[in-house]
Amino acid sequence: MKINDIDYRTIWPDPKNRKIIKIIDQRHLPHQLVIEDLKNVEDFAQAISEMHVRGAGLIGATAGFGMYSAVLGAEQDSVDKVLVKAAEKLIATRPTATNLAWAVNRQLAAVRNVVNLAEKTATMFDTACLIADEDADYCRRLGEHGLEIIREISTRKNGEPVNILTHCNAGWLAFVDYGSATAPIYAAHREGIKVHVWVDETRPWLQGAKLTAWELNEEGVPHTLIADNTGGHLMQHHMVDMVIVGTDRTTYTGDVANKIGTYLKALAAKDNNIPFYVALPSSTFDWQIRDGIKEIPIEERPGEEIKFISGLTESGRIETVGIAPPSTPTANYGFDVTPARLITGLITERGVCKAAEEDILALYPERNKLG
Amino acid sequence: MKINDIDYRTIWPDPKNRKIIKIIDQRHLPHQLVIEDLKNVEDFAQAISEMHVRGAGLIGATAGFGMYSAVLGAEQDSVDKVLVKAAEKLIATRPTATNLAWAVNRQLAAVRNVVNLAEKTATMFDTACLIADEDADYCRRLGEHGLEIIREISTRKNGEPVNILTHCNAGWLAFVDYGSATAPIYAAHREGIKVHVWVDETRPWLQGAKLTAWELNEEGVPHTLIADNTGGHLMQHHMVDMVIVGTDRTTYTGDVANKIGTYLKALAAKDNNIPFYVALPSSTFDWQIRDGIKEIPIEERPGEEIKFISGLTESGRIETVGIAPPSTPTANYGFDVTPARLITGLITERGVCKAAEEDILALYPERNKLG
Repeated sequence: MKINDIDYRTIWPDPKNRKIIKIIDQRHLPHQLVIEDLKNVEDFAQAISEMHVRGAGLIGATAGFGMYSAVLGAEQDSVDKVLVKAAEKLIATRPTATNLAWAVNRQLAAVRNVVNLAEKTATMFDTACLIADEDADYCRRLGEHGLEIIREISTRKNGEPVNILTHCNAGWLAFVDYGSATAPIYAAHREGIKVHVWVDETRPWLQGAKLTAWELNEEGVPHTLIADNTGGHLMQHHMVDMVIVGTDRTTYTGDVANKIGTYLKALAAKDNNIPFYVALPSSTFDWQIRDGIKEIPIEERPGEEIKFISGLTESGRIETVGIAPPSTPTANYGFDVTPARLITGLITERGVCKAAEEDILALYPERNKLG
Repeated sequence: MKINDIDYRTIWPDPKNRKIIKIIDQRHLPHQLVIEDLKNVEDFAQAISEMHVRGAGLIGATAGFGMYSAVLGAEQDSVDKVLVKAAEKLIATRPTATNLAWAVNRQLAAVRNVVNLAEKTATMFDTACLIADEDADYCRRLGEHGLEIIREISTRKNGEPVNILTHCNAGWLAFVDYGSATAPIYAAHREGIKVHVWVDETRPWLQGAKLTAWELNEEGVPHTLIADNTGGHLMQHHMVDMVIVGTDRTTYTGDVANKIGTYLKALAAKDNNIPFYVALPSSTFDWQIRDGIKEIPIEERPGEEIKFISGLTESGRIETVGIAPPSTPTANYGFDVTPARLITGLITERGVCKAAEEDILALYPERNKLG
């Protein structure tokens, strides 16, 4: 997608030296565009755990390239050990994201029967690129399915703007390209359908204020930034036509782990009869877990993310300020689980389905162990 | 209540010169304790509209003293005109707060039949002090009624800490003393009942992080600061035993206008069978309004409150930082309305009742026009 009218992805191999992988270090957005070079598995683990990159698809793509980076640093004798250690290191960075283990395991499987180091290296580079390309392609396709839902609402409203609320950043910055929640929005905007996006700022990390507002602005999509507390009021007053969010892990029964606060918006949507959609490439499904609330591990992050906020001063410096009494204890859960009963539909690269086991498995029959 | 172990109220006449009214300028908390002198009606209007003081009861008490300050600046010939103008000015500062008009009208009624300027002045001083004293007394009494609810949960939990979630600051800083939502908590803590408070930080103004965390800390009540997005997750995981919030306006049918985001917590409490209480001195009732969602005006505040955050830098300066792209449009609604159906009970100075017309009027029979 566009930054200053130039096309970018969120991660790409350096065209001059494919041992170096480039990312946008998203911690500096929206104030600065910083491109970072990742050169070894430690760089990758740090980039994920310290959120230089974040978001379901991008974490997966980064982990794919991270495994490739690990093989670059290995020798023939020790390569299998090195890869197992790299896999453990990368999977430990973010416990809730399912794409992480998915991408790492895909890399391990790709070279399981490849012995030669050079061949292993080439295969892992190709697989990393494939994971990234697939992610972009899946997002583009789910965007086309989601577009039809927006088009229907637009028609019903006689072309008046369709008001879409989103939480966190499930935009192209959270994937390799297009995004999940934003893909239908970008597709609609490109077709000339009038849309307006309510952007939850998304405390504590402010992904909405810092990333979603920024990318919608770069693409020219009308939007309004709001505090996370605001969505319920807007829904009560008929100012939201639909909600679209992303997901970091989705059970095969349709429960969705997404950024903390998603569950509250789903409750408000239900209470006001507003359709609540979750957009996801199928890499985000967890085919092992039945009960999202009981079984999905929820990451706890440092309390400093609650008590300190950084931003741009009037004089153009990045500064961090404390907003609470220094001794105040904090709790910082990264995600919550929205139960399937609150979700109108899942928008996937294969089409839209109900958030229910039967419907999900009908769309992904190859996952049906009985089928 | 205590600041550094010294007893304070949030507003008081200067004991050496009762033409000067003193307040805590709450914009500087938790970083600095700043006492401000208010000397004329403009000072009072500014203190309310720019939130040097905020919160249902304190806005009422400040408006009471503001009317007294207006009469101080008047002459015998023009006093009635001056008071009408002051009343308009003060009522316009915060459209959602019902205590504002209530206190202003109470002052006007107190001097309706008083002609002499000196006598008017004395009466208005006494009435302002009475409004403040009553507010403190009502909060103390509702605290005793709320205490019994906490005691019951504590007994059921065999003395394990009672986990109470609160939103915004309905603490003593929002009233003259004790607070509304906090009054039962302080009463329980004083009796040795173990309590622990989940403090919603309350974007955009961060009253939870800046004020509630600070006052609980000064009183030694165990608490944990959380992002506003977190409460639903905590409730799903049985980490909240009850919710207590305040209110800025309550219809006689039991709908509650409180800080934006309250409605979302009420939905989550309902979804998880957790009791949701609203604590209020009866000055917060609006006896004219039947439908809270349709009829209570919701204040819209400047968008800068969303895009800029101020806090304390490492070097001890107060600094304001921007957290969103500068051109991003914002919407900043101050309140939302929680419908009565989501509320377990109202805790008032006369006792606890259901959030329903019949029950409210049974507690306040003098308001029953048919009674």
